[in-house]
Amino acid sequence: MARIDNRANNELRVISVQPDFIPTASGSVLIACGNTRVLCTAMVEEKVPGFLAGSGKGWLTAEYSMLPASTLTRKARDRKGGVDGRSVEIQRLIGRSLRAAFDLTRLGERSITIDCDVIQADGGTRTASITGGFIAAAMAIDKLMQEGKLEESPIVRGICAISAGVVEGEVRVDLCYEEDSRADADVNVIMTDDGRLIEVQGTAEGAPFAREELNAIIDGAMAASAVLVEKQKEALGEAWNRVMPKN
Amino acid sequence: MARIDNRANNELRVISVQPDFIPTASGSVLIACGNTRVLCTAMVEEKVPGFLAGSGKGWLTAEYSMLPASTLTRKARDRKGGVDGRSVEIQRLIGRSLRAAFDLTRLGERSITIDCDVIQADGGTRTASITGGFIAAAMAIDKLMQEGKLEESPIVRGICAISAGVVEGEVRVDLCYEEDSRADADVNVIMTDDGRLIEVQGTAEGAPFAREELNAIIDGAMAASAVLVEKQKEALGEAWNRVMPKN
Amino acid sequence: MARIDNRANNELRVISVQPDFIPTASGSVLIACGNTRVLCTAMVEEKVPGFLAGSGKGWLTAEYSMLPASTLTRKARDRKGGVDGRSVEIQRLIGRSLRAAFDLTRLGERSITIDCDVIQADGGTRTASITGGFIAAAMAIDKLMQEGKLEESPIVRGICAISAGVVEGEVRVDLCYEEDSRADADVNVIMTDDGRLIEVQGTAEGAPFAREELNAIIDGAMAASAVLVEKQKEALGEAWNRVMPKN
Amino acid sequence: MARIDNRANNELRVISVQPDFIPTASGSVLIACGNTRVLCTAMVEEKVPGFLAGSGKGWLTAEYSMLPASTLTRKARDRKGGVDGRSVEIQRLIGRSLRAAFDLTRLGERSITIDCDVIQADGGTRTASITGGFIAAAMAIDKLMQEGKLEESPIVRGICAISAGVVEGEVRVDLCYEEDSRADADVNVIMTDDGRLIEVQGTAEGAPFAREELNAIIDGAMAASAVLVEKQKEALGEAWNRVMPKN
Amino acid sequence: MARIDNRANNELRVISVQPDFIPTASGSVLIACGNTRVLCTAMVEEKVPGFLAGSGKGWLTAEYSMLPASTLTRKARDRKGGVDGRSVEIQRLIGRSLRAAFDLTRLGERSITIDCDVIQADGGTRTASITGGFIAAAMAIDKLMQEGKLEESPIVRGICAISAGVVEGEVRVDLCYEEDSRADADVNVIMTDDGRLIEVQGTAEGAPFAREELNAIIDGAMAASAVLVEKQKEALGEAWNRVMPKN
Amino acid sequence: MARIDNRANNELRVISVQPDFIPTASGSVLIACGNTRVLCTAMVEEKVPGFLAGSGKGWLTAEYSMLPASTLTRKARDRKGGVDGRSVEIQRLIGRSLRAAFDLTRLGERSITIDCDVIQADGGTRTASITGGFIAAAMAIDKLMQEGKLEESPIVRGICAISAGVVEGEVRVDLCYEEDSRADADVNVIMTDDGRLIEVQGTAEGAPFAREELNAIIDGAMAASAVLVEKQKEALGEAWNRVMPKN
Repeated sequence: MARIDNRANNELRVISVQPDFIPTASGSVLIACGNTRVLCTAMVEEKVPGFLAGSGKGWLTAEYSMLPASTLTRKARDRKGGVDGRSVEIQRLIGRSLRAAFDLTRLGERSITIDCDVIQADGGTRTASITGGFIAAAMAIDKLMQEGKLEESPIVRGICAISAGVVEGEVRVDLCYEEDSRADADVNVIMTDDGRLIEVQGTAEGAPFAREELNAIIDGAMAASAVLVEKQKEALGEAWNRVMPKN
Repeated sequence: MARIDNRANNELRVISVQPDFIPTASGSVLIACGNTRVLCTAMVEEKVPGFLAGSGKGWLTAEYSMLPASTLTRKARDRKGGVDGRSVEIQRLIGRSLRAAFDLTRLGERSITIDCDVIQADGGTRTASITGGFIAAAMAIDKLMQEGKLEESPIVRGICAISAGVVEGEVRVDLCYEEDSRADADVNVIMTDDGRLIEVQGTAEGAPFAREELNAIIDGAMAASAVLVEKQKEALGEAWNRVMPKN
Repeated sequence: MARIDNRANNELRVISVQPDFIPTASGSVLIACGNTRVLCTAMVEEKVPGFLAGSGKGWLTAEYSMLPASTLTRKARDRKGGVDGRSVEIQRLIGRSLRAAFDLTRLGERSITIDCDVIQADGGTRTASITGGFIAAAMAIDKLMQEGKLEESPIVRGICAISAGVVEGEVRVDLCYEEDSRADADVNVIMTDDGRLIEVQGTAEGAPFAREELNAIIDGAMAASAVLVEKQKEALGEAWNRVMPKN
Repeated sequence: MARIDNRANNELRVISVQPDFIPTASGSVLIACGNTRVLCTAMVEEKVPGFLAGSGKGWLTAEYSMLPASTLTRKARDRKGGVDGRSVEIQRLIGRSLRAAFDLTRLGERSITIDCDVIQADGGTRTASITGGFIAAAMAIDKLMQEGKLEESPIVRGICAISAGVVEGEVRVDLCYEEDSRADADVNVIMTDDGRLIEVQGTAEGAPFAREELNAIIDGAMAASAVLVEKQKEALGEAWNRVMPKN
Repeated sequence: MARIDNRANNELRVISVQPDFIPTASGSVLIACGNTRVLCTAMVEEKVPGFLAGSGKGWLTAEYSMLPASTLTRKARDRKGGVDGRSVEIQRLIGRSLRAAFDLTRLGERSITIDCDVIQADGGTRTASITGGFIAAAMAIDKLMQEGKLEESPIVRGICAISAGVVEGEVRVDLCYEEDSRADADVNVIMTDDGRLIEVQGTAEGAPFAREELNAIIDGAMAASAVLVEKQKEALGEAWNRVMPKN
Repeated sequence: MARIDNRANNELRVISVQPDFIPTASGSVLIACGNTRVLCTAMVEEKVPGFLAGSGKGWLTAEYSMLPASTLTRKARDRKGGVDGRSVEIQRLIGRSLRAAFDLTRLGERSITIDCDVIQADGGTRTASITGGFIAAAMAIDKLMQEGKLEESPIVRGICAISAGVVEGEVRVDLCYEEDSRADADVNVIMTDDGRLIEVQGTAEGAPFAREELNAIIDGAMAASAVLVEKQKEALGEAWNRVMPKN
């Protein structure tokens, strides 16, 4: 059966990355995966949270938020105290995943905050945030190196992410909202640029899923990694070579 | 003495308006006034606050927020409960000003929320929010009319806004951040499209200002109104004629 | 057409100032402008906010709050987190205006908090807060000087405030609540004791107002300044001469 | 040994009650017990909390707050969410005590809120709040009866309160702050106008106290009841007879 | 008339104390008084609140909370900011009472937090918290002494607590929920192990109570002290002798 | 290499389940998995959240909280507004997983809240919460059926959970805290009683993990399912047959 946008089951949506969307940030991209658009920025601060003070080690954290107009029904802002549960869950995933790209002892006592503000939501906002957030983080590192504040890049590997799931009995990658809402299983896969895994979050949406389905889904997701890394490389241009580990 | 960007004292920064920046919104623009960029969206909800329930009357309100990366130093989000004082003051001004464009009894029992999210801040974010917010609101009205939900437009006049002030002893319009921080007086002027006043907020930044200075500043600001209205008309295209009052 | 209380259009309501209403405060007045009554107190603390620590400079800030019984319908306290938007807007205006009276580098690293608690609200609470708050602040400075903690007064000018507006087509000063709710335009004017302007906030309540109306309103407000300064002088007695700039 | 203000051990501080201090309230007094001054107001609302809706029964509750300037060191307002623990404890005591004066089934489905705002604190603010709060509540009832909204008064008894304690080995009533801070035991006694008890809260401040001491303290407090009731009667004037139970 | 569980009027419910219920705590007990069960733990932290920093003095505080399932109707958690008023009142009582057992100057600059989590509520949770909290606190002291962090115990006396009241015209001790809800008067008595008083909180639930009733209730409560102390001794075993004052 | 507690790599810690630990709850267990102990309760309320009102459908949600004394360093309560991020993430997982056991359209318009309060934390608290939470939920259903409020059980399958990971290069199940903190990969697997998957959350703790490692870990976890289901059956006794789907 055809997908709603006629993509092949293993085909990603069109990805476009607009770098330096916000010049005030150390790094920024507006990443679009189909109709999903996320503004990812990296801000560097010359301080660390209390539990790291004096450790010589740096920190990286993430915040995720949807603009009120990013969905058809206006989403209220988190202004009453506390952040809504789904955003907490997502931003913890983003931060955890991106920290895996870093050897934070090499960052020095500074913090990088990755802000992911969803401009338009059509499924896959958390994986787009990770893929785009890595680019913003890498830009920020490149800037610190250009400014002479860092000699060596603390980045130890590339990180990207994609969702995949079972829809209408078929394994499909990069679900849009319409597919996601009908999926039987939905898995977010966070990967390294050399084909290993950082985090796997698979959820049965309707019926439970079988072990073999999980395998097929993860296979589908991991096959998409090459395209994602290519887009990241393209967006970073020369900076990619400066910040990524040699070998 | 020359301005930092060589503009004439009565010259606005380049204004560009990108309509429909967020397709999920009823109305949206990314408005740029020089380096200040604000994403203004209008979302319609078929309900009103409690104090208007059963009145047959509609409501319009605004929320203002700066993205964390919109300034050189990361601005923390309003997530701890309460909104920071400056944002409260600004969003109240935006809402009050835009309500003056409407006869809300003609909107029916529905609410329009104007969200102004600052992408990049370089002075004049509140006036850009009003000028852009009016466009987004007008788009939302046009959509309600196209959908047959409104027969008659509730818009009774156009609204736009600009800042002006005294810098280095000279009256200048549309201050950028660098000028704003050195201004002796800074006035935000919210105007109608026919040259009357909706709100005037003038503040002495350093020394008190004289009555004549206030007059000169307001004159400067009001002279800019034609350019602003032109930009709004351009962004709305055909819709302008459909939603604006005839006469 | 006659005003509700038979005042002339340019006539203020009866102002009475009861100094030292709260002996525990460094400075305090119960100021009444007609039926509007505000308790203004100044408390000195030997510390400054973080952004001024080590700067040698002092700070002045204001908080505004209405007692629950100050209006006919009980006003809920701000106890759920966050302060209501109108109070935020007002207290920011009060603080900003009163800071214009001071050269804070001469205050030393201490803070003055002006608390304005509205006992009874009948229009003009924010301007009464500024006029009364200045007296309380001046009393606190006098006390610091008497105690030998300050040699020189950091006050560089006097500040007072009044509202004026257009009601029934006539320019009137010092609107009471009943007039305010029917006004076409309402302007709060914060002035120095020598006839210059600190802040002007003018809002169209119904229809937009014309440039000439604004001029007439501001003229009306500024003419009231002499009475306000006289009341402040009277309340401060000998202290006026001690804390105000010479010549 | 003489008391700091030369009172006899069983002598109350001078009590003065200024009725109708806030005309917008249904009932209000500014009660002073020595240097302790509390503004007590009663506001009536024609609604009840959810748990009483449809019950035909009314409600009475209290809120207690200290003005920032009521103590020598500025007391921060409860604006960050949550009320400080001491205020919670006190306002629960005030509400509970005053509810004992009422047969709330006779109030109808309306609420009375007693607001106790401390203008100046010198010990005994909670007992002054109860004694003054009763007067404000009675005024509100009288007003409801005058307006024809209530035929019969729901007040079933008078309530007043005083503190007593052991200071320097002697039982003393109505402790001021200076005595309170040196007291070995401090007891707040809430009484009816016919000499029975509503609440007794006794706390050892330093060493534990003996059973006999408690007895002596309560005796001392109860002896003061006549003076308190007399002051309440005086403040209420004719209204006392209209609202108090006949027998 | 017989009590609901056939106890004599002066008879306590069965008390059982399970020490070391949570091995991660410095001290812990699960105390049951009839169907009321409270988990009391003591945690030691090597820091003090700001107001004691540098004083050499320690601190003890308490937190009280009911598990959502501890009552037949689910009790919502205190997660929205602020703690519910009743819990605030109770935890302040627990903290104040247990501090009376200590000479905190002998604790050194460390804090003990007594957490009282109600597993099942059937009346008397606050007094069970105090009686059990003392045991947990004493265990924590014993551990500090065993670890060589304290040479001398800072405990100066034992503390226990019980409620008593008038039900059906009879003075009864240790009211269960069913009795408590029908009581005319309810008094919580916090006592020392040598028969003196720390705090007495007596409240008329229905009608006011007479002076003699209060006396009879307190007598009833104080007579129960021996049983409570015995249970505390039993739970502490050898540690009792190590931490309690000699002679 | 031997595990810290000498278990085989595929061996679970000792599980003990104490049913009916809190009689006031509709269902409750104290579940212990080694030193990890969680109190799981189910409370039924005859109402649903707003978004389900009138739908005829029920709801199930979960709250997770650690007692302050459950870890060696006291964990502060969530009382300042907002819940800590980790708890949000965990309670969302618990609720989502347990909802997969239910056909909520068969529950009627009522809510079940599963409260998971950690008494002692030694790794695996979220999986113990799910395994124990299912028992509590099933007890609550059984009670509703016994009371005649439900004719048919809404439970469509059993749910249990376990963690597994790679420690010292070996795949091990049911990691305790000490192992968890040294693990290279840690996966929480939520399963049905017939060997299918509900949710898989795998995280690289140090280095990324390979696809084959994930497979081995999930295999290890799924093999443990039989033991978990057996424990659930045992705890539910006769109720198991009453609430579980036939055939």
